[in-house]
Amino acid sequence: MASMASTICATGGGAYKFEKDFKDLVNMTLHKFDELNSLVRGIQFIRGFKANELFYIQEDEEEGPVEEKSFQSLSYTSSSEDSMYPFLLVNIGSGVSILSVTGPHTYKRVYGTSLGGGTFFGLCCLLTDCESFEDAMELAAHGDNTKVDKLVKDIYGGSYEKFGLSGETVASSFGQMNSSAKRKAPLRRSCPGLPQNIERVLFVGNFLRINTISMRLLSYAMKFWSGGSIEALFCRHEGYFGAVGCLLELMRTPR
Amino acid sequence: MASMASTICATGGGAYKFEKDFKDLVNMTLHKFDELNSLVRGIQFIRGFKANELFYIQEDEEEGPVEEKSFQSLSYTSSSEDSMYPFLLVNIGSGVSILSVTGPHTYKRVYGTSLGGGTFFGLCCLLTDCESFEDAMELAAHGDNTKVDKLVKDIYGGSYEKFGLSGETVASSFGQMNSSAKRKAPLRRSCPGLPQNIERVLFVGNFLRINTISMRLLSYAMKFWSGGSIEALFCRHEGYFGAVGCLLELMRTPR
Repeated sequence: MASMASTICATGGGAYKFEKDFKDLVNMTLHKFDELNSLVRGIQFIRGFKANELFYIQEDEEEGPVEEKSFQSLSYTSSSEDSMYPFLLVNIGSGVSILSVTGPHTYKRVYGTSLGGGTFFGLCCLLTDCESFEDAMELAAHGDNTKVDKLVKDIYGGSYEKFGLSGETVASSFGQMNSSAKRKAPLRRSCPGLPQNIERVLFVGNFLRINTISMRLLSYAMKFWSGGSIEALFCRHEGYFGAVGCLLELMRTPR
Repeated sequence: MASMASTICATGGGAYKFEKDFKDLVNMTLHKFDELNSLVRGIQFIRGFKANELFYIQEDEEEGPVEEKSFQSLSYTSSSEDSMYPFLLVNIGSGVSILSVTGPHTYKRVYGTSLGGGTFFGLCCLLTDCESFEDAMELAAHGDNTKVDKLVKDIYGGSYEKFGLSGETVASSFGQMNSSAKRKAPLRRSCPGLPQNIERVLFVGNFLRINTISMRLLSYAMKFWSGGSIEALFCRHEGYFGAVGCLLELMRTPR
């Protein structure tokens, strides 16, 4: 326990960037573990330990408040362990990493984009007076993206039926802001795109904390782009898996 | 010729949105053709007609001015017609459409994102004084994205070697703008992501007009994400294929 008390598990870039500060200022050692490895292990542990960790949003309408009842728990019991794999794991932090997880111990980073939570919050800070993620979420909840984004109907006058694009689909995020007359509307959302031919997609990361707007948009987009065959899956402890994974790793580390 | 003089070929949303204005104001009829069909036909025609239409950027370094000699022409002669297919066609206008083109007459829209040229220009207008795309390009050419974006080295202190991510890779676009102290740098680029397992990717659309910054970023990103196996291909007449495709279609229309 004495050694535990002087030890902090850490993952991600901060484990490297702030290592010296921890040592100099509070004389504590960082036990550094790989970020994505800890993430995957943490998810697997919590999922096995807590049956209702995973949920999806059961709702077809895009607008209106999200009720707690819309959050449908999804249990993978140990007997259905195999059916979980393969799945895509989308980790939305400052940027986005996408991992293909093919089994309990096999995963690969297949994709990444720099358009993530940091982009959303950075733009919010530049464009509004907000100073915290909570403020940005509050602004977004009351914003109206149809005054900022250019929709398919703003371009076509209606839907683009040949490709199944509804008139309400966003054609160009921020696409109306080239017009000085329209440059007064509050900010809302940008929705990153989705890969094809996947059976299960699990979204995690601190960007989703208190962020039902993004969860609903991701649910809606997954359904749309998969033709209704895929539900976006979320986790009740969206940003804690790295910490859990670190702890698991620490417990296996010989001392 | 008399009938030609009173006819304008049109494609895209504008063909629907402005049809009545053309009729009312100048008494001209719009011959409307499908946007993506015209695009594909136009590219195929110009490519067959003009040997040097396609080019790629031969350059490994990301910084410094792009010389004309860096633009390497690429000829697909009629004998190599088959080897062109399949390819991905990425049309970057206000938003982005991605088509899988598997043969001279077969293509499918496989993907789209609302983060495109309209997003770039809309954000430029919101964040700077620019009033035209040319102004925005000029600003971008002199901007320094490392003061705006959060790089891998800003998070990790260096590279993230396990996943081959250089410290210079953008981890989070606009990711530094949550800091009020850093909120003064001029704007630059956001680079959309890329699919996997593709042999040829052709980028077109008016967003690429006078936009060597984006062409170089796309080249760099294609090489990075494909492990060096794919070159991004561009066209000398990036935004005119829809018009050419319309004209071809008009010539086949019985009168």
